[in-house]
Amino acid sequence: MKPATLAHRRELCFWGWGYADAGLTPAEQSQVAGLAAQLGTGAAPAPAPRLEEFDLPAPRVAAPARLAAIMSATPYDRITHGYGKSFADLVRLQARTMAHPPDWVAFPRSEDDVEALLEFAAGSGAAVIPFGGGTSVCGGVEPDVGGDYRAVISVDLQYLNQVLEVDRSSRAALIEGGALGPELESQLKPHGLTLRHFPQSFEFSTLGGWIATRAGGHFATHYTHIDDFVESVRMLTPRGAMESRRLPGSGAGPSPDRMMIGSEGTLGLITRAWMRLQDRPRFRASASVTFPGMPQAAEAVRAISQAGLFPSNCRLLDPLEAFMNGVGDGNTALLVLAFESADHPLQAWMARALELLADHGGRWDADSVQRSMAAAGGGEEGGEHRKGAAGDWRNQFLRAPYYRNYLTPAGIIADTFETAITWDRFEAFYAGVRERVGGAIREVSGAEPLLSCRFTHVYPDGPAPYFTFYCMGTGSGDMNAMLDRWRTIKLAANEAVTSLGGTVTHHHAVGRDHRPHGYDEQVPPLFREAFAGARRVLDPNGLMNPGVLLDTPERGAVVGGVLRHPQ
Amino acid sequence: MKPATLAHRRELCFWGWGYADAGLTPAEQSQVAGLAAQLGTGAAPAPAPRLEEFDLPAPRVAAPARLAAIMSATPYDRITHGYGKSFADLVRLQARTMAHPPDWVAFPRSEDDVEALLEFAAGSGAAVIPFGGGTSVCGGVEPDVGGDYRAVISVDLQYLNQVLEVDRSSRAALIEGGALGPELESQLKPHGLTLRHFPQSFEFSTLGGWIATRAGGHFATHYTHIDDFVESVRMLTPRGAMESRRLPGSGAGPSPDRMMIGSEGTLGLITRAWMRLQDRPRFRASASVTFPGMPQAAEAVRAISQAGLFPSNCRLLDPLEAFMNGVGDGNTALLVLAFESADHPLQAWMARALELLADHGGRWDADSVQRSMAAAGGGEEGGEHRKGAAGDWRNQFLRAPYYRNYLTPAGIIADTFETAITWDRFEAFYAGVRERVGGAIREVSGAEPLLSCRFTHVYPDGPAPYFTFYCMGTGSGDMNAMLDRWRTIKLAANEAVTSLGGTVTHHHAVGRDHRPHGYDEQVPPLFREAFAGARRVLDPNGLMNPGVLLDTPERGAVVGGVLRHPQ
Repeated sequence: MKPATLAHRRELCFWGWGYADAGLTPAEQSQVAGLAAQLGTGAAPAPAPRLEEFDLPAPRVAAPARLAAIMSATPYDRITHGYGKSFADLVRLQARTMAHPPDWVAFPRSEDDVEALLEFAAGSGAAVIPFGGGTSVCGGVEPDVGGDYRAVISVDLQYLNQVLEVDRSSRAALIEGGALGPELESQLKPHGLTLRHFPQSFEFSTLGGWIATRAGGHFATHYTHIDDFVESVRMLTPRGAMESRRLPGSGAGPSPDRMMIGSEGTLGLITRAWMRLQDRPRFRASASVTFPGMPQAAEAVRAISQAGLFPSNCRLLDPLEAFMNGVGDGNTALLVLAFESADHPLQAWMARALELLADHGGRWDADSVQRSMAAAGGGEEGGEHRKGAAGDWRNQFLRAPYYRNYLTPAGIIADTFETAITWDRFEAFYAGVRERVGGAIREVSGAEPLLSCRFTHVYPDGPAPYFTFYCMGTGSGDMNAMLDRWRTIKLAANEAVTSLGGTVTHHHAVGRDHRPHGYDEQVPPLFREAFAGARRVLDPNGLMNPGVLLDTPERGAVVGGVLRHPQ
Repeated sequence: MKPATLAHRRELCFWGWGYADAGLTPAEQSQVAGLAAQLGTGAAPAPAPRLEEFDLPAPRVAAPARLAAIMSATPYDRITHGYGKSFADLVRLQARTMAHPPDWVAFPRSEDDVEALLEFAAGSGAAVIPFGGGTSVCGGVEPDVGGDYRAVISVDLQYLNQVLEVDRSSRAALIEGGALGPELESQLKPHGLTLRHFPQSFEFSTLGGWIATRAGGHFATHYTHIDDFVESVRMLTPRGAMESRRLPGSGAGPSPDRMMIGSEGTLGLITRAWMRLQDRPRFRASASVTFPGMPQAAEAVRAISQAGLFPSNCRLLDPLEAFMNGVGDGNTALLVLAFESADHPLQAWMARALELLADHGGRWDADSVQRSMAAAGGGEEGGEHRKGAAGDWRNQFLRAPYYRNYLTPAGIIADTFETAITWDRFEAFYAGVRERVGGAIREVSGAEPLLSCRFTHVYPDGPAPYFTFYCMGTGSGDMNAMLDRWRTIKLAANEAVTSLGGTVTHHHAVGRDHRPHGYDEQVPPLFREAFAGARRVLDPNGLMNPGVLLDTPERGAVVGGVLRHPQ
């Protein structure tokens, strides 16, 4: 039976990734069983949670008449907005626990609705959590707000999902913040344009969410984050609208956009943005290049990153990552290099890149590289089934999160963490992270760590390594024990990447999970204070996503129904 | 006689651009005379100002013993730090007036000195103006601070001019904020590296100044502002040091760097930064391409900007600008297009660019393009005499500001303003700016406007047009009348570019001059409030560069020798 909801979207799997009617094929499920056997978990997979198994308290405040039609307190809506999609979220769903469900989920139909919601929240002492697609893997949308809030309202912007205006000449469009990846791409397609921002969450995450979290996307170089595509942003703060000017570039003071980008819901809700777009690519070139080991491969990628060739893909898989993905023998590293263009054939670019890779011991199949360049034509992007290794990767990439729907109930911890580091420190960093996080995995699971790495993005001054690990989380089906084990590993990962000089996150955002031993140490204390000072101006009552990025703000008393911040 | 100074640098022309012992050649001076005749100014050039003609009041506070050795109140030091290099500055120097000289100019030798200076300023109620090379053309370093400050100290960081550390592998270096362009390039050269940031002020401006003002540099695309080269920043604020982490990329919250970049001295002093560097280029390709008019030329540049070719130079001169630079007949627009690389020959890049230009009616000399690509080899950059049109332009570009040393005393207003605008609005914008600013020029000078335009930088979503104008400022030698005329034109320019949708500055910064009818309208009011909130945290007593970017902060009373901001 379809659950009661105010959402217009296809029903989601409330306890895991993706749509309720999607899942792994039997063949994929047997991979999960194989992994479980390898890791030694013998627990029978727990049955899927049902909505009625969750014990949700009644909303602590009543919805006002003006907003009643757009506010929902159905179990489906509250549970799908009570967590993101991190491992910790999935395992707590398996445990049928949700300590902090939102009191209400609001589905505004307009900016007026959003403003009315902010007013209601200020008046009733409720915290507000902006909600895009809910794919946060770092506790960014969870209503665990601390403080003395009287309620929490999760504001889901899914009805604000239109491309409002297209400027073909400047290749830009004004897009509403609640548009999912496929929704905005399908509206841009008739104009021959594409945003080409394809995070792994592409199907389930929104433009506003990408901007709020500085999401990383399709391009391995040059345009690595959504930041680079933002022309201007419109945000509704508790003090009112803040909208930056649409400009191709500016040097007028600190960038207003750069304060809103990455603010993770702590300043306001991103209702629309002018985005820089691309023409749909017509030319492609790709190569799969093997290296005898990771050090040589990393040096090769460094050479590519500093050559000014700007490949769209420069994904280096370390030997274990290549092996786990079925494209390596466990000893060789694999680089997937690709160029794309809407304007010109890419022979010269690929030829020079291959020269650099050959200098570092890379090997590839020349015929297959030639074929990749012969097959021009811009296929469907984002979720389509494309031919060849790149298409395989994309499909696998988009399906990967579904595996956790099966791994978690089977007692397996499967998670990732990602970072960036300058080239001079990469070798020690790569060894150090594997040693420290591997040590934590060994400690909690008693087994040799299965911890692999790939580069998702590369810069002239360093790579963005992305680590994946699997280990036994519980042999007994005890989900709380599994959560404890995961926390030990997660904190070790935060600590390792941060204390070894990296960033605690390259593109997964900070949320709550990346603060301890991570963001709180990484960022200059005075910057955090200054940002909190800016936030006090925009959100004097401390309503917006408390506990994310910064501590829950100290708040004043409710005076005459309106919260007043101490002056 | 060499003036008394604590500066270590070669003596500067205190009343104009550049070094005291540099100037225009007789041939160049005759160009000035020709322009004066054309514009109809008949005034005999005023004699050069002398230091003793300025009436400077004694410093209002005494230098403390700890800092006496690094604080100067000599006329040369105070006058060279009392203005930047805008037209308004030059004409006031011609008028022998300086209403707000700094009480002291400090030359710290270390970060400890800077901290001691900030402490002294807080204790004595003095404002602090960070001073790099003093080439601001928007009132960014002038001690006209408003409020009730007891004194103003200009802090010149010229002794902090070392490259402290080089990371060859990541192509990055830790450089002190007070290093001039040539100083840092000469220290990087032995490592085979270059920052390649060549603003027109290259010889006289500093790294810290570039970062504080979001300076635009050498590259017409991709790396347009110094912002793009900043890996991390260290700033001394009145609350202490704030230092971001060295990272190739990050998605951890709003970027701390992006708050410091463009802060124009209002948050603190930039003492050092890790900068991303380039290998010295070995390959070049360049073309001079003519177009029958500006609309076709702009469309051609739009095509280039959206092709993903990333030329290093894409300078489009409109017909008048080409004519004024002696490279056009007044009817044709000229595009100077260049590619450079340290890694690969550029035939494919240039070939595709020329195809696009041909599609839009561009014409060029094929032999000369071929020759540009044949002549490989990385010549000296930044101020050297290079062969060919590109070298001619560079030399002319660096010498251009010297002309104003002759034009101003001859009664000619010569100035520039720069902006950026999306492609969809460019045509109306270009017409509108010329009409409105041309109208202001006509109004004050009574003559047809001489107002030309070039693109300095281009983005996929729009160009950065840079306007130059000349007009008669005074026929009588009355410098105050000339200043009034300039103000009329300047306000018209601010108003035109801002109200027509552009930015009030693409890379000259905001300072004081770009606030009225410009920055104050362009930036969202809530952003300015939020930025002021961040500033209150870092500079609770409102010491730092008051009046720049934001209004002079409201300040509390001096309590026990220390300023306290109202809580």
